[in-house]
Amino acid sequence: MVRRSSRLVAVALIALAVVPVAAETPDRAEIVLTVEEQHDATVKSLQDWIALPTIAAEKLNTPQGAEYMQQLALDAGFQTAKIIPTDGLPAVFATLDAGAETTLGIYFMYDVKQFDPSEWDSHPLEGNLVERHDEGLTIVGRGAVNQKGPQTAFLAALKAIQASGRQLPVNIVLVAEGEEEIASTHFDQVVAVPEVQEALAKSIGVFIPSAAQSKDGSANITLGAKGAVEFQLVVGGETSDKYPKTDIHSSNHARIESPAWRLVKALDTLVADDGHTPAIDGWFENVRPLTDRQKQLIAEGAKLNPEDQAKELLGIGSWIDDLPYITSLERFYSQPTVNIQGLVAGYTGPGGKTILPGRAEAKLEFRLVPAMTKDEAVKKLEAHLAKRGFDDVQVTISGGYGPNETDEDSILIKAQKRLFEQNGIAYSIRPRSAGSWPGVIFNGAPLNLPASQFGLSRGGGAHAPNEWFLIESTDPKVNGLDEATMAYVDYLYLVAKEAERGTD
Amino acid sequence: MVRRSSRLVAVALIALAVVPVAAETPDRAEIVLTVEEQHDATVKSLQDWIALPTIAAEKLNTPQGAEYMQQLALDAGFQTAKIIPTDGLPAVFATLDAGAETTLGIYFMYDVKQFDPSEWDSHPLEGNLVERHDEGLTIVGRGAVNQKGPQTAFLAALKAIQASGRQLPVNIVLVAEGEEEIASTHFDQVVAVPEVQEALAKSIGVFIPSAAQSKDGSANITLGAKGAVEFQLVVGGETSDKYPKTDIHSSNHARIESPAWRLVKALDTLVADDGHTPAIDGWFENVRPLTDRQKQLIAEGAKLNPEDQAKELLGIGSWIDDLPYITSLERFYSQPTVNIQGLVAGYTGPGGKTILPGRAEAKLEFRLVPAMTKDEAVKKLEAHLAKRGFDDVQVTISGGYGPNETDEDSILIKAQKRLFEQNGIAYSIRPRSAGSWPGVIFNGAPLNLPASQFGLSRGGGAHAPNEWFLIESTDPKVNGLDEATMAYVDYLYLVAKEAERGTD
Repeated sequence: MVRRSSRLVAVALIALAVVPVAAETPDRAEIVLTVEEQHDATVKSLQDWIALPTIAAEKLNTPQGAEYMQQLALDAGFQTAKIIPTDGLPAVFATLDAGAETTLGIYFMYDVKQFDPSEWDSHPLEGNLVERHDEGLTIVGRGAVNQKGPQTAFLAALKAIQASGRQLPVNIVLVAEGEEEIASTHFDQVVAVPEVQEALAKSIGVFIPSAAQSKDGSANITLGAKGAVEFQLVVGGETSDKYPKTDIHSSNHARIESPAWRLVKALDTLVADDGHTPAIDGWFENVRPLTDRQKQLIAEGAKLNPEDQAKELLGIGSWIDDLPYITSLERFYSQPTVNIQGLVAGYTGPGGKTILPGRAEAKLEFRLVPAMTKDEAVKKLEAHLAKRGFDDVQVTISGGYGPNETDEDSILIKAQKRLFEQNGIAYSIRPRSAGSWPGVIFNGAPLNLPASQFGLSRGGGAHAPNEWFLIESTDPKVNGLDEATMAYVDYLYLVAKEAERGTD
Repeated sequence: MVRRSSRLVAVALIALAVVPVAAETPDRAEIVLTVEEQHDATVKSLQDWIALPTIAAEKLNTPQGAEYMQQLALDAGFQTAKIIPTDGLPAVFATLDAGAETTLGIYFMYDVKQFDPSEWDSHPLEGNLVERHDEGLTIVGRGAVNQKGPQTAFLAALKAIQASGRQLPVNIVLVAEGEEEIASTHFDQVVAVPEVQEALAKSIGVFIPSAAQSKDGSANITLGAKGAVEFQLVVGGETSDKYPKTDIHSSNHARIESPAWRLVKALDTLVADDGHTPAIDGWFENVRPLTDRQKQLIAEGAKLNPEDQAKELLGIGSWIDDLPYITSLERFYSQPTVNIQGLVAGYTGPGGKTILPGRAEAKLEFRLVPAMTKDEAVKKLEAHLAKRGFDDVQVTISGGYGPNETDEDSILIKAQKRLFEQNGIAYSIRPRSAGSWPGVIFNGAPLNLPASQFGLSRGGGAHAPNEWFLIESTDPKVNGLDEATMAYVDYLYLVAKEAERGTD
């Protein structure tokens, strides 16, 4: 491996103050210059990608999203990029053989969450560059941070290394899916394709580019994620003839059963009277309590995320059960949930309307922790409802997967730690993300690979209006797009180095 | 009183087979001819009225609706017609002094229910004339049957009598409100105006024109109606800072309370586990059981409304609690209800969306029976929720009124019976309507007047798409618009006659 010269480190220090000492990256300053040269093209590429939102729930821009993703991979130097059909939206499988010893798996999502332009300050598909108070220049658009921004930075890193005629320090295997926002309904089919499975099996692990840098420049390492299972409960004329097939005059409730009340009664059994503790029979059977190490990590992480700041960001005045902050965080990372995403029945406009609704629907989701599984959760739900006679309540599982966990001593994680330490970046290790991504597909059988999220960049508003990703930071401790790109460059070299060490 | 000649009765028999013997109406055949002459203008007037929907919940066509109502009254021969402002939509108060001994009160509603044109086969404001299978020519539009059709027929009756230079057999006091569909929120203010109260106090009672003729030509007399109180329950960031102010990422439910679950928990306490028996503390305290006479009336009425036909019309396969038909009808007329009109929280589109909603709302309504009152029901609800600690659940009462009841031996009802008997029309007497109208305003203190619904015409789809009112019936036993108009003519003479008898 070529070692960087001191002169170039000095240049890098000036150009990119945030990542002053990336010990493993050769000719770093040259790559920095390339990243800067390609900056405008990278922003343009991100804007173009934002302009083409693929939304699986609405079947929007399919198959265009996969084709676009395929082209993005080819443009970034992948020698092969194939569209892999599934029973849902297609995935993209791409390989970049650099002749390296080590292969790294990368997971992308090319889909985005639904959006309502009327709730946004600027149009969610325009990717406008907007000055954000106390942050800097940001790009605003659906998918900006979740995940097109971080993914674009990663692709820019690949391009920058190659632009100078260098080989990547690792080979890359990329799998990109289009159904992440509907709980990766068919992603297991992608990984089951022999060619894909074989390629991934050679990797030291898989990560998804993310934006996890805090306002103060500190970073996170995340050792896994909760699983998520989305489902809908429906009651009405379509599930039993004791309910009307359409909305009828409400006076009839004196002689006709109400789908809405039936739904309320079914829902009521799913959580305890405190309004949050899951009450599905046997729910906690396989829930592993936090280890002492996990609790220690949570307590350390809390120091980097002051309580008042967290409350302000979330717009709340107290935690669940009025818990103290640390306990609320332990609950956040350790507890499986049964959440209501939405309720809809009958009349939903202003005021009232004297109808007996013919249909009532609740949209729910489970968040699962180790060692729960998707199948277990679904079976328990169905058994719970059946035992209580709710055979007129239709359960539709619209997607989901189990939790994932990765060892602190894996190459993926060790390289992250080293990057932060070499650059003097404060970081916390979270035992897991309370959010979800389908890492279990890599983490579970048959691949059993380390799986993680990684990215040294910043953004916010995922799944919300005015989603943003930082392009040019006003704070030298916080990364903009180019610094985030360089962090991926450095990370790739560190992964190669850690793998080398591991096999020494 | 002038007696009709036999010759003219014969003409009437031919022209209007349905009402062959209206013993009290003088020169009846001449009036029939006038009704027929004005038929096209009456239909046009109904179409014009349908084209101007006043919807209180949406503040649509206000004040135009009241001004239009005022003009309709003046056109029908009322000598005075005033707009009476309220804290909500204005009402119209009109008087027609015919120099008669007897004064009759009439209640109109000039507002209509909300509508969604996409759910209709023809536009709800066009008032298209559409052939309806097995019924005849109908007018289709929002308000067609509820209540513009029947009210137009009543106004046409006034016009027809006057068109021949005759005086009406009774003086008329009309009060028309614009908030019936939002539970007559401010109607008590109208009746409290001294001039209005004084005029109404002189009347023998008040009725609302309605369309109650069945498919087989039979009719109903209704001795009152349930009360209705509409209210909304809201939980969210706007009611407590333990909830987020907007929708946030659903992973946060592991540490933040859910407005949607809280709403479910509050709702769950309002009805028993059967999904329909109200469980509000003290709810049944003032509920009067049905008398033997009321049960007898229900059983007799059931004969005119076969069970299979009723089920088909409602689109259901069984009654509440799997009750037999007669028991389901007793329940229908006697039981107060707590109904969910609508539920809305978080994401309501297709599939799911991983959010924790910042707000959850349930739209509900009570139906009240004698001797419950609105105030009692509201206080019991509030006490019930307070006792269980639901102080973060905001209750908004958007309107309502108590039940009403009228004596079988009042002039209003006796005149109805006589009309049906004289014309050989089978009829049932319902102890009350399971629907609601604010008759309590007339029925309760200080007026204490008989209050009823009356109309010998046919229609359907109130509060639903494709609302219709019969214009030309294919069945000689069932009334179209002109026959319905003549039934009002005959009724006015019968009311005068009954009042005369009563004071003999």
